[in-house]
Amino acid sequence: MQMYDLIQKTRRLEPLTIEEIRFLVGGYTGGSIPDYMMSAWLMAVCCQGLTVEETTELTFAMRDSGQCLDLSAVNGVTVDKHSTGGIGDKTTLLVAPIVASCGGYVAKMSGRGLGFTGGTIDKLESIPDFSVTLDREDFIRQTNQIGCCIIYQSGNLTPADKKIYALRNLTATVDSIPLICSSIMSKKLAMGADGILLDVKYGYGAFMKTPEEASVLANLMVDVGKQAGRNCRAVITNMNAPLGSAVGNALEVKEVIQMLRGEIRNHLTELSLALSAQMLTISGKGDIITCRQMAEKALTSGMALEKFAQMIEAQGGNAKVVENLSLLPESPVSRTISARSDGFITEIHSEEVGLACLGLGAGRTADNPNIDMGAGVVFHHFVGDYVPKGEPLFTVYGQTEALCQIACNRIMKAVRVKEAPAVAIPMIYQIIE
Amino acid sequence: MQMYDLIQKTRRLEPLTIEEIRFLVGGYTGGSIPDYMMSAWLMAVCCQGLTVEETTELTFAMRDSGQCLDLSAVNGVTVDKHSTGGIGDKTTLLVAPIVASCGGYVAKMSGRGLGFTGGTIDKLESIPDFSVTLDREDFIRQTNQIGCCIIYQSGNLTPADKKIYALRNLTATVDSIPLICSSIMSKKLAMGADGILLDVKYGYGAFMKTPEEASVLANLMVDVGKQAGRNCRAVITNMNAPLGSAVGNALEVKEVIQMLRGEIRNHLTELSLALSAQMLTISGKGDIITCRQMAEKALTSGMALEKFAQMIEAQGGNAKVVENLSLLPESPVSRTISARSDGFITEIHSEEVGLACLGLGAGRTADNPNIDMGAGVVFHHFVGDYVPKGEPLFTVYGQTEALCQIACNRIMKAVRVKEAPAVAIPMIYQIIE
Repeated sequence: MQMYDLIQKTRRLEPLTIEEIRFLVGGYTGGSIPDYMMSAWLMAVCCQGLTVEETTELTFAMRDSGQCLDLSAVNGVTVDKHSTGGIGDKTTLLVAPIVASCGGYVAKMSGRGLGFTGGTIDKLESIPDFSVTLDREDFIRQTNQIGCCIIYQSGNLTPADKKIYALRNLTATVDSIPLICSSIMSKKLAMGADGILLDVKYGYGAFMKTPEEASVLANLMVDVGKQAGRNCRAVITNMNAPLGSAVGNALEVKEVIQMLRGEIRNHLTELSLALSAQMLTISGKGDIITCRQMAEKALTSGMALEKFAQMIEAQGGNAKVVENLSLLPESPVSRTISARSDGFITEIHSEEVGLACLGLGAGRTADNPNIDMGAGVVFHHFVGDYVPKGEPLFTVYGQTEALCQIACNRIMKAVRVKEAPAVAIPMIYQIIE
Repeated sequence: MQMYDLIQKTRRLEPLTIEEIRFLVGGYTGGSIPDYMMSAWLMAVCCQGLTVEETTELTFAMRDSGQCLDLSAVNGVTVDKHSTGGIGDKTTLLVAPIVASCGGYVAKMSGRGLGFTGGTIDKLESIPDFSVTLDREDFIRQTNQIGCCIIYQSGNLTPADKKIYALRNLTATVDSIPLICSSIMSKKLAMGADGILLDVKYGYGAFMKTPEEASVLANLMVDVGKQAGRNCRAVITNMNAPLGSAVGNALEVKEVIQMLRGEIRNHLTELSLALSAQMLTISGKGDIITCRQMAEKALTSGMALEKFAQMIEAQGGNAKVVENLSLLPESPVSRTISARSDGFITEIHSEEVGLACLGLGAGRTADNPNIDMGAGVVFHHFVGDYVPKGEPLFTVYGQTEALCQIACNRIMKAVRVKEAPAVAIPMIYQIIE
């Protein structure tokens, strides 16, 4: 078998066989297929596509390139959640305790952030002393005891994906539906949960710019998940505006705690409850209406807050943060911007907000791998809100006045205030089962 | 400027600017752009194409990546010929002396063969003591004195093409019209002739399988040549069957000499006269009818044979070969295959014949860089001929009985003899000015 012929086939829209796909993934991961051949193949995939069968086999071959987690020691149905990534997306920190409060099992591995703001792991690490590195035994034990555990994805999971993704990132071959699908699903399958809920984002701050594109990707991923014998669903959600009020690691944890305490409720609450209900249904806890009511009750009763505190404590963190928000880091300088005229907020461009927060140090860059945990932005209003002149729109947090000024200027441009009200776009576009 | 963005643009069908194309070619040739980025870009070109303007600028940037030959010291209009390559294509050895006999100037650099049979340089080297390495001064001097000189393409001509072609050859990105065009035309422009005749082949033994594809490539190359201020024309010719009767280095030289001596005349004669006439027209020697008559006269009068002998002598070779064909190498074993039934030859599959000759050692392979100069095949009949049972069809020459047997078996399958006559396909499909 020759890699040259496989590149040629994909270029000519001739499907590869299972053996050919295994040869390709194994050869590249093992080093016998060089980068320049793989990047040519990846570009052929970007331009010519892959069939559903090829995508499925590619995903399985990538899953099998390393270890696969065995969660069979968990005393029930395990359920995982994956978001394709968005600005201010802290839903995992809400759904994990909500689902666990209702008897579900969330044994989750997460990643650090690359670009924009931090990942789920970075957010958790803004909680003093929180540990994201548990060994496998403790991971299972905590999941059994508390119902949720979120740790950093370590070990030799999907080395093929790591190597292929690094190459895609250098060769403009990231945005390809079969490649995105195989990258996400190979990891999710290797992480071993019985059920998988996929939150596929569309909009400014997402890979997929339209709900239709997101739907194509989501259907493909659900298909692959089912082929692997997993209970798999997807929710297509709007990522045009940031999710919730806060963007930035500790600021987002603060919003999560306030929401779990019942002090604030916004579109993020609705999305988190909807996602939790889907995960509970996948866990076999009842139909979607029942599960939604369970999730609502877990939130309003304070059970989910209690569960969040238990998880923090179990992972070595200071659980007092749920009572005392001042225990979380906050950057020294803050600056609030108010509305310059009366009007309706018609847009908050999430990608621009993400880039502004990156400038504040809330995310990693190639030049600076360190995160300022206390930096970011908090919005006081959302798309659709009426704001009178002088009303605070958002507050930026950073290390210096200069950094805050730059971020404020960028975010001001990202927030549109108009005389006529905007049509509110629903958070959830579609559910794929 | 970032290579990543250029790959992205080509992938998204956004044209690159001149500066971007120069950056890309310069960066890759200089080593600052790695292979894996270049191969991704090349695959994007294969799948998405390039505009005529981009192809032109790519060609110019590749031409300018190294030295360009200065032929201004030649005492007249210089004219070059390029063939996209075919089985048994020895037209250069015929047109160079014909054009020179009519007062044209052919100062030509040629290559060695890769795959199939040898290149023009390999064929010339089958003539005892013929030297293909002249310095620039001698190259110009001989062209002025005799009217033709064919040497090996040496020096630092189009290093960008060498590096890009090597990568294309490993990444299934060879068959792309803009990439083929830029590769051929960058070399032709760097070789400095005032006029360029392109012989673009189609059929089994060619890159372009149909005359329509060949026409697209030819039009693009003529366009690029004209943009560079050259007098450029193209001829689209049929490469389904081998060109002439012989395939193999010394065997082809033998056929050339026999043709120049007036002993044989076939479709190769017609093609060579047509190409010569085009080159003479490009050289300003008159209209196409006049030039065709001049070429015919040069051939039948023996002037072209005399010119060929002069060229051999000037380049240190044994010019007695034109009188004594036994001075040329011939492999020790030969084997003739005869028709097994009465019928018409309807097909001689050129690619299969090429591969059979490669097996005989008439061309280079990765394993064996040495050529058996005397090996190959001579056909005694052509497509369209009626052959009675027992009539010799072809003779194979090789080092051993075993090698000859394998080649005979392969060529027998390549030759189709049927009861009904075949419609003869004309050699020339189209002329593009």
